[in-house]
Amino acid sequence: MNILILGAAGMVGRKLGERLARDGHLGGVAITRVVLQDVVMPAAPAAAPFPVECGAADFAAPGAAAALVAARPDVIFHLAAIVSGEAEADFDKGYRINLDGTRLLFDAIRAVGDGYRPRVVFTSSIAVFGAPFPEAIGDDFFTTPLTSYGTQKAIGELLLADYTRRGIFDGIGIRLPTICVRPGAPNKAASGFFSNICREPLAGKEAVLPVDEDVMHWHASPRAAIGFLLHAATIDGARVGPRRNLTMPGLACTVGEQIAALRRIGGDKVVRRIRREPDALIQRIVAGWPRKFDARRATELGFVAEASFDEILRVHVKDELGGVIA
Amino acid sequence: MNILILGAAGMVGRKLGERLARDGHLGGVAITRVVLQDVVMPAAPAAAPFPVECGAADFAAPGAAAALVAARPDVIFHLAAIVSGEAEADFDKGYRINLDGTRLLFDAIRAVGDGYRPRVVFTSSIAVFGAPFPEAIGDDFFTTPLTSYGTQKAIGELLLADYTRRGIFDGIGIRLPTICVRPGAPNKAASGFFSNICREPLAGKEAVLPVDEDVMHWHASPRAAIGFLLHAATIDGARVGPRRNLTMPGLACTVGEQIAALRRIGGDKVVRRIRREPDALIQRIVAGWPRKFDARRATELGFVAEASFDEILRVHVKDELGGVIA
Repeated sequence: MNILILGAAGMVGRKLGERLARDGHLGGVAITRVVLQDVVMPAAPAAAPFPVECGAADFAAPGAAAALVAARPDVIFHLAAIVSGEAEADFDKGYRINLDGTRLLFDAIRAVGDGYRPRVVFTSSIAVFGAPFPEAIGDDFFTTPLTSYGTQKAIGELLLADYTRRGIFDGIGIRLPTICVRPGAPNKAASGFFSNICREPLAGKEAVLPVDEDVMHWHASPRAAIGFLLHAATIDGARVGPRRNLTMPGLACTVGEQIAALRRIGGDKVVRRIRREPDALIQRIVAGWPRKFDARRATELGFVAEASFDEILRVHVKDELGGVIA
Repeated sequence: MNILILGAAGMVGRKLGERLARDGHLGGVAITRVVLQDVVMPAAPAAAPFPVECGAADFAAPGAAAALVAARPDVIFHLAAIVSGEAEADFDKGYRINLDGTRLLFDAIRAVGDGYRPRVVFTSSIAVFGAPFPEAIGDDFFTTPLTSYGTQKAIGELLLADYTRRGIFDGIGIRLPTICVRPGAPNKAASGFFSNICREPLAGKEAVLPVDEDVMHWHASPRAAIGFLLHAATIDGARVGPRRNLTMPGLACTVGEQIAALRRIGGDKVVRRIRREPDALIQRIVAGWPRKFDARRATELGFVAEASFDEILRVHVKDELGGVIA
């Protein structure tokens, strides 16, 4: 099996490559080749039992998509995107990469023809939804994004479904929850604090909490996210039917519940490293975000997320900290 | 007020031009100029009290949109589209006109800059929805189109909302019901019979009914459709909020109820002109269509459709037949 990962240098892409290298197969079929692509050079996972080819290029540049699909990968993970804040700050760049890039990729697959019909796994986002929301957002709730990023993802979903219906490829779109605990340095995304208040204290550092403890959000671990991608790559398309875009399961929990779990996992000394510093701007941004979903379809189709925030923290301590809490 | 109509040679565009010519104003403001554009040369309405300029061009050709918006129309009615059957038969043409054309228009408005921010009225379609449906489709039901046309309209809706949110223009998208009674010759659209079984018998001709009488569908008259467009052109955008795409009100009625109304309006002799000729293909296509909506938002925002099929027939007899039933 020949696999292409677009956006392979991002956190999810990197973890996906590492997991494939560890497994050596996908859905029971041996992996024969993996191509990792991103706008910055992705790192090849260590000790992969198959050849790995890394490339740095703008996949939305003329001809780039055709070159990427020329080797007819069996599975294409399309994770490449300009993220929310940047797509909002740079209108043209967001549309060029997130909309045009996605469409150029899809059209490049179409141009191969000759019976080529890969599985395409597209990472969408809960940003396709826009407030006001019901208490739990069901599978048939409408997509009224309030950002250009969310708009571009929603358009990608529509294209994915139509190109799949047309038989051009076999697409599955997955709307990822907020990934928590996100490894790496604290980032400036407005959602960063959900991870920061876990990752930093567990590593012996201070973290800032800018919102109240009753703020609820929708989480899944990086490990669960990779599980979603692998399941989306191998699921029987006929079981999914024509509605190809799925809200992934996750865990709805409040910041207070996050902190309580952190206390159970790391004790009071860890929790004391959280500093409360209310930030009106972040509070306002977060108030417009989805809090909770009823992801029934994806759950019935076998996608699995963590059932408690304790579990999310344990995944982090094991996968990122080698089991050691500071 | 300076008005541009794209797709002005179609049935709805032509009636819109005629109505503007009759009114001489829009929302209480005198119309100073109307530009009618279509891929075939539109006819200027008779006796318009303002200058009318007609042009035939492909609005999706390079530079065409810029030329159309250069005169900074205050209101742009974007009715231009490759219809459902053709967009399904010709993948590239449908995407080129319905998606790229729409985006080129929106980007041309953006390129004008300098505070230019017209009202854009975009006709979308109930084809943005895909079966299975709830009994009545509510305002927050998701868009999972099952045709490329529906996909392209749903993408147009998303772009309209995002460009509006960005302040590039002030857009309102309206999802029209099936227009009934559609004037003109019987057409080959799978939905044609809903109009054919009224229009032809009222004009003394035979019509074919290919489905059972219990088939329910969602209707509004051409006059109501023009009313939707005028209301969308003049409604206060602040009242609409960020969710800029609205399912228009309509009348849910069965073919049997259509025929009963036809009998009340035209008598038995008219109804006897309907010939039952079941067509399995049309029955299958129609079974996948939406039947009924709960168009609460649009109704609250002042959009008005007919309340009975009798009224729809009376509109047809008055507007198209000069009051005379054959």
